Amino acid sequence: VAEGWTTNMRLKLPITCFILQIILIILFGAVVKYDHETDAKAWHNMTESGHSNYDNDFYYRYPSFQDVHVMIFVGFGFLMTFLQRYGFSSVGFNFVIAALALQWATLMQGFLHGLHGGKIEIGVESMINADFCTGSVLISFGAVLGKTSPVQLLIMAMFEVTLFAVNEFILLSALGAKDAGGSMTIHTFGAYFGLMVTRILYRPNLDKSKHKNSSVYHSDLFAMIGTLYLWMFWPSFNSAITAHGDDQHRTALNTYYSLAACTLSTYAMSSLTAHDGKLDMVHIQNAALAGGVAAGTAGEMMLTPFGSMIVGFLAGIISVLGFKYLSPILEEKLKIQDTCGVHNLHGMPGVLGAIVGAVTAALATRDIYGDGLKDVFPDVAKGDVEASFQGVRQAISLAVTLGIALLGGLIVGFILKLPVFGAPPDTLCFEDDVYWEVPGDEAGHEDQLTTVRTEESEKLNS
Amino acid sequence: VAEGWTTNMRLKLPITCFILQIILIILFGAVVKYDHETDAKAWHNMTESGHSNYDNDFYYRYPSFQDVHVMIFVGFGFLMTFLQRYGFSSVGFNFVIAALALQWATLMQGFLHGLHGGKIEIGVESMINADFCTGSVLISFGAVLGKTSPVQLLIMAMFEVTLFAVNEFILLSALGAKDAGGSMTIHTFGAYFGLMVTRILYRPNLDKSKHKNSSVYHSDLFAMIGTLYLWMFWPSFNSAITAHGDDQHRTALNTYYSLAACTLSTYAMSSLTAHDGKLDMVHIQNAALAGGVAAGTAGEMMLTPFGSMIVGFLAGIISVLGFKYLSPILEEKLKIQDTCGVHNLHGMPGVLGAIVGAVTAALATRDIYGDGLKDVFPDVAKGDVEASFQGVRQAISLAVTLGIALLGGLIVGFILKLPVFGAPPDTLCFEDDVYWEVPGDEAGHEDQLTTVRTEESEKLNS
Amino acid sequence: VAEGWTTNMRLKLPITCFILQIILIILFGAVVKYDHETDAKAWHNMTESGHSNYDNDFYYRYPSFQDVHVMIFVGFGFLMTFLQRYGFSSVGFNFVIAALALQWATLMQGFLHGLHGGKIEIGVESMINADFCTGSVLISFGAVLGKTSPVQLLIMAMFEVTLFAVNEFILLSALGAKDAGGSMTIHTFGAYFGLMVTRILYRPNLDKSKHKNSSVYHSDLFAMIGTLYLWMFWPSFNSAITAHGDDQHRTALNTYYSLAACTLSTYAMSSLTAHDGKLDMVHIQNAALAGGVAAGTAGEMMLTPFGSMIVGFLAGIISVLGFKYLSPILEEKLKIQDTCGVHNLHGMPGVLGAIVGAVTAALATRDIYGDGLKDVFPDVAKGDVEASFQGVRQAISLAVTLGIALLGGLIVGFILKLPVFGAPPDTLCFEDDVYWEVPGDEAGHEDQLTTVRTEESEKLNS
Repeated sequence: VAEGWTTNMRLKLPITCFILQIILIILFGAVVKYDHETDAKAWHNMTESGHSNYDNDFYYRYPSFQDVHVMIFVGFGFLMTFLQRYGFSSVGFNFVIAALALQWATLMQGFLHGLHGGKIEIGVESMINADFCTGSVLISFGAVLGKTSPVQLLIMAMFEVTLFAVNEFILLSALGAKDAGGSMTIHTFGAYFGLMVTRILYRPNLDKSKHKNSSVYHSDLFAMIGTLYLWMFWPSFNSAITAHGDDQHRTALNTYYSLAACTLSTYAMSSLTAHDGKLDMVHIQNAALAGGVAAGTAGEMMLTPFGSMIVGFLAGIISVLGFKYLSPILEEKLKIQDTCGVHNLHGMPGVLGAIVGAVTAALATRDIYGDGLKDVFPDVAKGDVEASFQGVRQAISLAVTLGIALLGGLIVGFILKLPVFGAPPDTLCFEDDVYWEVPGDEAGHEDQLTTVRTEESEKLNS
Repeated sequence: VAEGWTTNMRLKLPITCFILQIILIILFGAVVKYDHETDAKAWHNMTESGHSNYDNDFYYRYPSFQDVHVMIFVGFGFLMTFLQRYGFSSVGFNFVIAALALQWATLMQGFLHGLHGGKIEIGVESMINADFCTGSVLISFGAVLGKTSPVQLLIMAMFEVTLFAVNEFILLSALGAKDAGGSMTIHTFGAYFGLMVTRILYRPNLDKSKHKNSSVYHSDLFAMIGTLYLWMFWPSFNSAITAHGDDQHRTALNTYYSLAACTLSTYAMSSLTAHDGKLDMVHIQNAALAGGVAAGTAGEMMLTPFGSMIVGFLAGIISVLGFKYLSPILEEKLKIQDTCGVHNLHGMPGVLGAIVGAVTAALATRDIYGDGLKDVFPDVAKGDVEASFQGVRQAISLAVTLGIALLGGLIVGFILKLPVFGAPPDTLCFEDDVYWEVPGDEAGHEDQLTTVRTEESEKLNS
Repeated sequence: VAEGWTTNMRLKLPITCFILQIILIILFGAVVKYDHETDAKAWHNMTESGHSNYDNDFYYRYPSFQDVHVMIFVGFGFLMTFLQRYGFSSVGFNFVIAALALQWATLMQGFLHGLHGGKIEIGVESMINADFCTGSVLISFGAVLGKTSPVQLLIMAMFEVTLFAVNEFILLSALGAKDAGGSMTIHTFGAYFGLMVTRILYRPNLDKSKHKNSSVYHSDLFAMIGTLYLWMFWPSFNSAITAHGDDQHRTALNTYYSLAACTLSTYAMSSLTAHDGKLDMVHIQNAALAGGVAAGTAGEMMLTPFGSMIVGFLAGIISVLGFKYLSPILEEKLKIQDTCGVHNLHGMPGVLGAIVGAVTAALATRDIYGDGLKDVFPDVAKGDVEASFQGVRQAISLAVTLGIALLGGLIVGFILKLPVFGAPPDTLCFEDDVYWEVPGDEAGHEDQLTTVRTEESEKLNS
């Protein structure tokens, strides 16, 4: 085939999936066990010593988990269906890389969060953390959307999960930073990792498939399903692993108001930056979510509803400006082809969230938090560090995250360039037909375009 | 531009959004604070005096809140996507007016529900109430769908939220009525307010855009997403702010069976009223939900599953008959152009629910409720009033609601008539292209209609 | 009309719906009452003797119920929208037969699970069980999808719910089997019942509507909404009625990993079995769910994450192989026209789940389960039976389920063959237009196909 592209996945994809899944099963068999709340014996030993079945953390984390789970599979999956001919891949690749990433994340995070007698213990909290790590991979997926094969994506997921776990360990365990909703660990990391990968995978002739790199009417509506589920459940996302009690409650509240304010500023900016005042679906689908990203670090802190709204308000403005003015520059000058604009939704708002988190941490006092200080800033509460130093820790964490993400993306990008992974040619980017059996467009109509597409890709796959 | 219509939103929408959002931020800064369950210090003072973190109301209200939240953003938003060329506006305007309304509702309800040392205290219960109030605005949106600019809708939302809070205060605080699921406060109020607004905004030449005021195959499927989320989560809606324990449990149960019975009678009536027995998607999408509306007041009472099913059964019948026979009359005789038929889904079933609530309240006895009487009818339990008088209170509440809704809608309707708000001309109603950048219909096809539409609206926006 | 087909539903459907719903209302009035957690008086008697309102089972079951509820209405409903011209029927018939089935299931299960003073007591647990039973009916619906009238489906639902309750009673009460997630009671039963019905309703000339028995681009995306909601909430499904504490927690965890592994093997097999390596949406939409089915019995047991992943991994492989190689054979040789391939998603994985459950039960020891043994295998814990005998019980339960399902399907299939029920002719299978008012395909386009379809079906309905 021309240019040496071989997109036929018949051996590559099954081999990749089978080998990775079998390795995962073996490793799970070797090192993973139920934690004391999912293990029948261990839990019943606890209930005999006074615990009630109703105290099981399942009841206090599982609803949050399910909301996060919906964000990962429906939220991210459908958000990316905005492309006219890439809906199967958006939802379908999202599905398979998430299913892989959450398993691998269980191992990587379990290993770094601390073994128990040589074993990784799992329960609802590890499930949430695994989904969080998966979210980061899906953000990077957004940057390379339409330009990668499923095998490339699975390989990327394995590396990125590993680096995510390392970065998370450095931030939360080594540096003692706080980042419950992952402005740094999830959003900043995922965005800049993905942006570096897409930079390395730069395609100078991507305009050959330019006509497919846009939406149609119904695909924009499908994308709104993703947007709304992300928006609605973001309060659950940011609060899913904070301390029980006021912390979860406050985090959800802060995120709720941050998102509401962000939505208003997004609509305002979208209209203001269009010469005819018309709203742009790209902004609505993405920038309205920036308020959730930006409240990811400080959401559990005493940010106040007032502060949350200011953060969301700014995030929406920054995000729309990014889509409108910065993304074209990044593409032209820096050769960063960011399909979903993750820099605008996760990158800049993530950095904003990290800064807000650092400032809010530096301003923490016992007068404001009372005894709740020990939940939010345990080291400050113990007197080990000053609040201002906690702020410095947070700032350092942002720098570390950017460094690991960019360096990691650089290395992984070059690995993904290997032609063996079956990336699509420039003419067939943003096109489901390369990797999927695609039916016609409409009931009963002959679809000439489909025929053309199929012929074109059959040549490739032969 | 012909007829003086100026639909260009480039200044109007950003100014409206920015000013309103900045006012909200300032007011939140001035008067809003965390309540004792979201504030770190206050909550930890409580936990020291015996409360457990697991007692935080977050765990007993937040899952209900999330279900309500989905109804507001996905339920209402997608229910209105049935129009062939108004999906962006349905979901997108729903999104922005809800994001505004929930903030303003926090202030209005907080102010009227009682200040704490001059401050409004917020937590998960106020979030649910804010979403409820927002629901009422979205019902009114359904009545004027397709005929209003986003600025009109935002202005309407501000006024309606204010009046909603006043009406709610009169009903629940001044009159001592019960209305947990909002048959009166939410549905009756939202419907008749919206009907009056659309009456005032009457367009004699609306048939100029008649061909767009209908569905296409896929838009009806999108609308079913909205319908089903409303249907499934209605038990959570009606039970979200009832008393803990049996009350929430019973309310969810009653609503579940009311909706099930309503669905059967809706299908029966839809088929029966069609000359060829074919089901009509309009009925299925809307009337099947009337059972949730009608169980809004009495759902928390000892209505019994039997009673709930009768209520739902009747609601479905009334609602389909309304769509089939009453709506055309309202439009022709009373000049009420009710795009979504909110009179049939929220208006009449809301009134039915209010009546059922009044009768059920009047029949309450200590023999039936036991000590649970104090949760459902505290004044009756205390002996302050007779059950029959509670029934009278409920009936008066319905009358008050109708009065405030109609009078409020009258005034607000005239305000919204001001040409400055940029309403679309008759020829461009039910058309996204006026306010949105709209892509083509289908992958790779030249869409002549879009071209025509774009030209038409570019003239307007110039 | 030719061949005696009369698909006009104008009398049949309303009469069926009204009669069934009125009978249900009367029976509910006669025999159904609130249980002690939904009844105001009974619950408050309990709270006076030490229970807190927060102990109400509502808080420990209702979030699970809502997830199951979404699976039933959105999950099953949208999963079946993959057909190009059958979306209204898929979602709409799913809706009405589910609304009927859950009411009838409340009565049948309540009657067989034990009356309280001659009354059936209901609450959140009975609601979950009713939804479970409904799920079984919807599985059977998948087998006959596109070839039945709504009246046939409602009649089928009534019979199937009854037989489901009988089979469930034999398994759980008489035989003492465990089947929390319903690998046997729900999936195996629903699949083989439906397969036998579709066998009896065999249409030798179904290829007359062959061109409609396939998907189009957008219909496959709608179906993915169904798939993902089933996938995400399956952990809630399997854990919804297990014992509180570690049991629910462990079941959700096991199902989560089973599904993840299943997704990987599904993608691998889908690509491997296509000559050009392209993924097939049919596999992704269905086989990726088989891991949830197969974890239905053993999910609550100490299956270990390792074991769960193996089960899911195998289920995905079996399911894709079934779609690819077995379904065509079943259709050609055994005359089983299985529209949705329920044999591959629910049948074989259900049997696999039953076998895994039997083996896991036989291997249970007090050493592994500790005192948790009494939750999972109460008879073994009490010493009434050996674990190995519990395994035998499980195996017998599978055989009983298959027997009742096949025999029941045989009888009900012949009942449904009566021409009075208005089944569609072979030429109009997989076509919404027979039973629904169907709008055009696309905004503003004349749709000639719709015109043809309408004329064709108008002849029939006259």
